[in-house]
Amino acid sequence: MYPQLLLPDLKEMLAEDDKAGLAEFCDVLYPPVAAEVLAGLPAEDVWRVLENCSLSRQVEIFEFFDLAKQIELVDKLDRKRLSRLIEEMSPDDRVDLLNRLDSDRVENLLPLIAQAERSDIRKLLSFPEHSAGAIMTTEYASLPADISVREALERLRKQAPNRETIYYVYILGDDRRLEGTVSLRELILAKPDAKLADIMRRDVISVRVDDDQEHVVQELGQYDFLAIPVVDSQNRLVGIVTHDDVLDIVQEEADEDAYRLGAVQPLEDSYLETPLLTIAWKRGVWLVPLMFAAVVTAFVQLQYEGVAEEHLWLGLFVPMVIACGGNAGSQSATLLIRALSLRQSGSFRGAGVIARELLVGFSLGIGLGLLGFLLTLLFVAPEHAMIVGSTVMLVVVMGAVMGAMLPILFERLGMDPALMSNPLVASLSDILGLLIYYNVAVLVL
Amino acid sequence: MYPQLLLPDLKEMLAEDDKAGLAEFCDVLYPPVAAEVLAGLPAEDVWRVLENCSLSRQVEIFEFFDLAKQIELVDKLDRKRLSRLIEEMSPDDRVDLLNRLDSDRVENLLPLIAQAERSDIRKLLSFPEHSAGAIMTTEYASLPADISVREALERLRKQAPNRETIYYVYILGDDRRLEGTVSLRELILAKPDAKLADIMRRDVISVRVDDDQEHVVQELGQYDFLAIPVVDSQNRLVGIVTHDDVLDIVQEEADEDAYRLGAVQPLEDSYLETPLLTIAWKRGVWLVPLMFAAVVTAFVQLQYEGVAEEHLWLGLFVPMVIACGGNAGSQSATLLIRALSLRQSGSFRGAGVIARELLVGFSLGIGLGLLGFLLTLLFVAPEHAMIVGSTVMLVVVMGAVMGAMLPILFERLGMDPALMSNPLVASLSDILGLLIYYNVAVLVL
Repeated sequence: MYPQLLLPDLKEMLAEDDKAGLAEFCDVLYPPVAAEVLAGLPAEDVWRVLENCSLSRQVEIFEFFDLAKQIELVDKLDRKRLSRLIEEMSPDDRVDLLNRLDSDRVENLLPLIAQAERSDIRKLLSFPEHSAGAIMTTEYASLPADISVREALERLRKQAPNRETIYYVYILGDDRRLEGTVSLRELILAKPDAKLADIMRRDVISVRVDDDQEHVVQELGQYDFLAIPVVDSQNRLVGIVTHDDVLDIVQEEADEDAYRLGAVQPLEDSYLETPLLTIAWKRGVWLVPLMFAAVVTAFVQLQYEGVAEEHLWLGLFVPMVIACGGNAGSQSATLLIRALSLRQSGSFRGAGVIARELLVGFSLGIGLGLLGFLLTLLFVAPEHAMIVGSTVMLVVVMGAVMGAMLPILFERLGMDPALMSNPLVASLSDILGLLIYYNVAVLVL
Repeated sequence: MYPQLLLPDLKEMLAEDDKAGLAEFCDVLYPPVAAEVLAGLPAEDVWRVLENCSLSRQVEIFEFFDLAKQIELVDKLDRKRLSRLIEEMSPDDRVDLLNRLDSDRVENLLPLIAQAERSDIRKLLSFPEHSAGAIMTTEYASLPADISVREALERLRKQAPNRETIYYVYILGDDRRLEGTVSLRELILAKPDAKLADIMRRDVISVRVDDDQEHVVQELGQYDFLAIPVVDSQNRLVGIVTHDDVLDIVQEEADEDAYRLGAVQPLEDSYLETPLLTIAWKRGVWLVPLMFAAVVTAFVQLQYEGVAEEHLWLGLFVPMVIACGGNAGSQSATLLIRALSLRQSGSFRGAGVIARELLVGFSLGIGLGLLGFLLTLLFVAPEHAMIVGSTVMLVVVMGAVMGAMLPILFERLGMDPALMSNPLVASLSDILGLLIYYNVAVLVL
């Protein structure tokens, strides 16, 4: 599929105002493909295309635009058209959109939206960001336990058109309490006269509405489910989270972790769609504290002015020595942050990890220290090169251990370990590295 | 669910050799939950539990262990039992396992495996790692186009037990050519007498068997599919990739990108399961070249020995000045590497990006340069602080632009942009940063 190839045709149809052609474009293409082609047009033109098809089709296509494009598009709609669109959207997608709109605008819109949808929106908007409640959809298929498989299939047929998935069916008791699940595959395989109560699975894996989205990802990922039910504190079913939303979250979280590791505040849109000033701001908030950390190195060097002036060659190797600590530290921090993230946590003993890093640090330190010694021989006498070599060794051990300790410490304090970015680890190891270097020098010289 | 709570019971049953209890454990629990509990036992005990249930149940549970545990477990099996297990496993999971076993051992096993399974294994093993062919499964549901919906449902019922999914059905023509798809939902909603040819979707989105797995992730993610068909060069269906495998790949690729960014060769198992020597090796291969890059800084400083000795205060600010470049560079590299990864590529113009980074770099550089000037005033006279401040500004611009350029360059050369790790960017910007610093100093002093 080469969606870009369709764009010229579409532009021609727009220029000729070929309504029949535009209607066909919307109706025949897969909605995600249509969205991809339309994303190349300005907002006004997107609506000129979409207004030729049914509202439900418009919404199907609209939901495949990324959030930034959706926001651009709704800016062109009056309140009335926007409220129709919101009504028709699936519950989870519309809450994502409303969360990004001005809250005055949302309050202005809500009165125009049908009662049932409005209370659904208010409910979903009330869940904290990144909770299971905020990412779930309320359009699940549910049935009572006391009907036959034949009747279940009959009822599912009626529910199907406005359910996000009918492949998992949730069996609800009194007060919407979640009693079991059955998959469409099981229904197809079961005898038509069997009762759902007899074929349903009763040990249901579910998440709580206030669980963090990372927990939802973990559970759905571990069990290979298509969807996972979300319940409240009384085990009443309130929604489901589907596999496609989990996939989006995993990618979002990976982006966030990567940004944090690089000392950038996570972006909400893609890099190219984020305004320059926002990017500068999201970087500046980290660069400024890092600058204050960096200035500490000048204070440290001032303390050792005496030995540095007496042995001017020491200065030659300052950048090299501190780089070694920063590199080893970045590696450990990266390994630990990934290990603490989504999947590998659980059986984690901080002390054991530090011991591991100490061992790895020593084996790497000895190798690099030797290499450092040999390379320094190009510049200075062996007794001086010894100082550089042993500093490299100690600095690598220090970097490895510190890079591992800090993310664990952040985790223990209830903070995101990924805040311990590579540049931050490097800054701290610069300071400690200098202290080690000058102390070794003072000791030996 | 608290799987850990079940472990003591299980150990007791093992101690008492309570075969009925062990059989119930395997049969009643969800396979992933059973696997999670069993993972806490040594390999021999896992088999003592599993041998109490049917082979198909054993395999269901076995497939939920992570690869490292699977390998540990198969080491305890003789050839005959192992070959039965392999036969029963799903095609994609068994190929993942075989890929990690000794190739002699695999060749030894294959003769014991049934003909049909054996040729399937040989075929899947022949695809290059990380290609669609290597991650697909061959257990898909397929039907001809000329049958009715009623008959289709009848036939699906028969196929269901050994298909990975029956929610998407692939319609095949002569020679297994992929002609269309229909979902089980559409089948349930359609009139029983309708022909598949009339209700199937003909513009099928598929991937080629030699496509990279990143492309598979992109397509399935974009279209929110449960599974995506894999075809050969003649559009013949050869397999499908399902949503749960894609989720695993996304997490794997996020791990790999993060490791590369931190200058660690990607690990195959989790951090805690990787032997210490392997970790040391995967870090050392990066630390050694980084050390050679670092020693260049000593050469640079040697070139400017004159000015450095004449103005000893210059040395105080070397670590601070070069840290600023490294930080700005790490940020740009991180942003670009994420932007070039999975989802944001496409409309990427290198020159535009460099221009953006130049602008962002200048705005950050001016702010940080000013801050640097003010902080340096704590140590030296204003005319000297000016040198440091303007160096900080230039170094930040240099770091921002270089951090953006290098990943783009790597991408153009067909290499993974994530190889441009934060420590590598920092090393290069150390060198350039020193050159800038001393040249500004020479110019002014």
